[in-house]
Amino acid sequence: MEEFALIRALAHRFAGKPSRVVRGIGDDAAVIAATTPAWWHVTTDLLAEGVHFDLRTASPESVGYRAAMANLSDIAAMGAIPRYLLISLAIPSGFRQKHTFSLYTGLMKACRPHGVALIGGDTSASRSGLFINITLIGTTASGLALFRHGARVGDHIYVTGTLGDSLAGLQLLEQSSSKGSARHSASPFRPAHRRFLMQRHLRPSARIKEGQWLNNARLATAAIDLSDGLSGDLRHLCEESRVGAEIELDKLPLSAACRIYAEHRCIQPAQLALTGGEDYELLFTAHPATRSNIERQARARGFHVTCIGIVRPHRFGIRMKTGDGTVRPMPLTSYEHFR
Amino acid sequence: MEEFALIRALAHRFAGKPSRVVRGIGDDAAVIAATTPAWWHVTTDLLAEGVHFDLRTASPESVGYRAAMANLSDIAAMGAIPRYLLISLAIPSGFRQKHTFSLYTGLMKACRPHGVALIGGDTSASRSGLFINITLIGTTASGLALFRHGARVGDHIYVTGTLGDSLAGLQLLEQSSSKGSARHSASPFRPAHRRFLMQRHLRPSARIKEGQWLNNARLATAAIDLSDGLSGDLRHLCEESRVGAEIELDKLPLSAACRIYAEHRCIQPAQLALTGGEDYELLFTAHPATRSNIERQARARGFHVTCIGIVRPHRFGIRMKTGDGTVRPMPLTSYEHFR
Repeated sequence: MEEFALIRALAHRFAGKPSRVVRGIGDDAAVIAATTPAWWHVTTDLLAEGVHFDLRTASPESVGYRAAMANLSDIAAMGAIPRYLLISLAIPSGFRQKHTFSLYTGLMKACRPHGVALIGGDTSASRSGLFINITLIGTTASGLALFRHGARVGDHIYVTGTLGDSLAGLQLLEQSSSKGSARHSASPFRPAHRRFLMQRHLRPSARIKEGQWLNNARLATAAIDLSDGLSGDLRHLCEESRVGAEIELDKLPLSAACRIYAEHRCIQPAQLALTGGEDYELLFTAHPATRSNIERQARARGFHVTCIGIVRPHRFGIRMKTGDGTVRPMPLTSYEHFR
Repeated sequence: MEEFALIRALAHRFAGKPSRVVRGIGDDAAVIAATTPAWWHVTTDLLAEGVHFDLRTASPESVGYRAAMANLSDIAAMGAIPRYLLISLAIPSGFRQKHTFSLYTGLMKACRPHGVALIGGDTSASRSGLFINITLIGTTASGLALFRHGARVGDHIYVTGTLGDSLAGLQLLEQSSSKGSARHSASPFRPAHRRFLMQRHLRPSARIKEGQWLNNARLATAAIDLSDGLSGDLRHLCEESRVGAEIELDKLPLSAACRIYAEHRCIQPAQLALTGGEDYELLFTAHPATRSNIERQARARGFHVTCIGIVRPHRFGIRMKTGDGTVRPMPLTSYEHFR
């Protein structure tokens, strides 16, 4: 019961009350005044201890931060402005007050920079494990949003940022609990690379500005966020658009740190990019005629976008072109958020 | 993975797509077109196995039905029209496909009669226990809603329906797993009473029409739904309104079945009414001048409302008047949804 009192106090402390929030925490429902016509975007995620996160290797703050970011990324992929957050927690008996505080701190560190207001939620006991449900509401202008289903044959396929960093960071975090991680002092893989990759896992950034740009400038024909890895999420976009795709492995954008890490570990860096989840970059498609426009606007705004392939007919399937020019089916691999 | 494919199939099967739903299940977020000014009401509940429900005594269908009803009841207490539902499930390995189907069936049996559309959700594995998160969105006209914080000293306190039935039903369900429940054949407690009370627990009804009536006719000054029991929920309303309350125990509305059950079990029926949760009736306050109006309109609409007390100043606390005229503090008891 003390736990619940703390959460009420935290919720009130962190609760935002922008002008359109008529009623936040403290009633049977949160109330928002929808005054002007808009499209409302609603996404919800339920995260389970031992499945999506491991409290033995991640701090509650990091868990909270990443839980919020996963939902911010969904809203980013719609081209929407994230606005209102509801958090439900089921808390096991061993979870201490300082952990709850840390979890909320992480959630708010992710949300505050985007002006997202905490308006409601629910708290209960859990007999086993921590469960976090987040519901996030965003808005766009009426009639204007990015969907998964708009890709057309011939469209170019782009991604923002670099891929695979988060998975590399996760592997490094898992190793660092065991010993001897910095054995090869002659290796070009430096502590700065390690820190960069770990941060990309622990503190990912949803591409909210990029999503809004693509939506408002009507540049993208379809979009999805990369939460399960390129291989899985490209498949979702293709299914919804009823198209195939051809990806050039050599074009996948990789950070220097990820490349050097992959060499150091004798892994194909493309493998990290294809299967690594939780990068929270955007994957989008656009008509080929807009390519120079996209690249010019991205440069002007300081956004990093890379064309990695082309949309093919549905019967083509989803294939990848390797460095030696051979084209083969992309393996169906799904990122498990935590093993 | 088969489980997830089933849920996708079920979700598509049960998904509603009213005209205002631009995009339901299948994208990064559900999209709703908010065309006219309105107030949006958002509520979320996370239900944990072993805390809120017990799959040894309740069917997955009943669990789904009651999970939806708990949220419908929150929307009813705001005087809102329930519209859009998102369901997140964390499913343990032992939970079979037929159970998932049954859970969805229950959810939809609760929602369909009210025209609520399933527009999104999330599914994941759970290492331990079933977890269900529901997010429900309702609407009212702009500027028109019932809140917990509007009660004024001197207002009358009302409840809809009858109280304590659900707790009596739960006790009967718990007994019926043990033997010898119908021993006293001379008792006036009949199988019909038993069935009525069990149904009130397994198939409660949120007072959605009553809530909309009270809101649209501007009759109530404050409202809350009875999910934790009168004792607890009256306290929430009084806290938010910064008032006290005096309840007359003799006036608490009890069903004939609940009265006879209480006699049969030698319990004070008022005790069931005060502490029994999950009745999903509405508790509301109204200016004394509106009493005849409320009673006349309720009769005309076939609604059951009972005046059970009066709002007192905050310093008065929350007290109850017993049959012999003594007034004493109402014990702070909180209903545990499942023990």
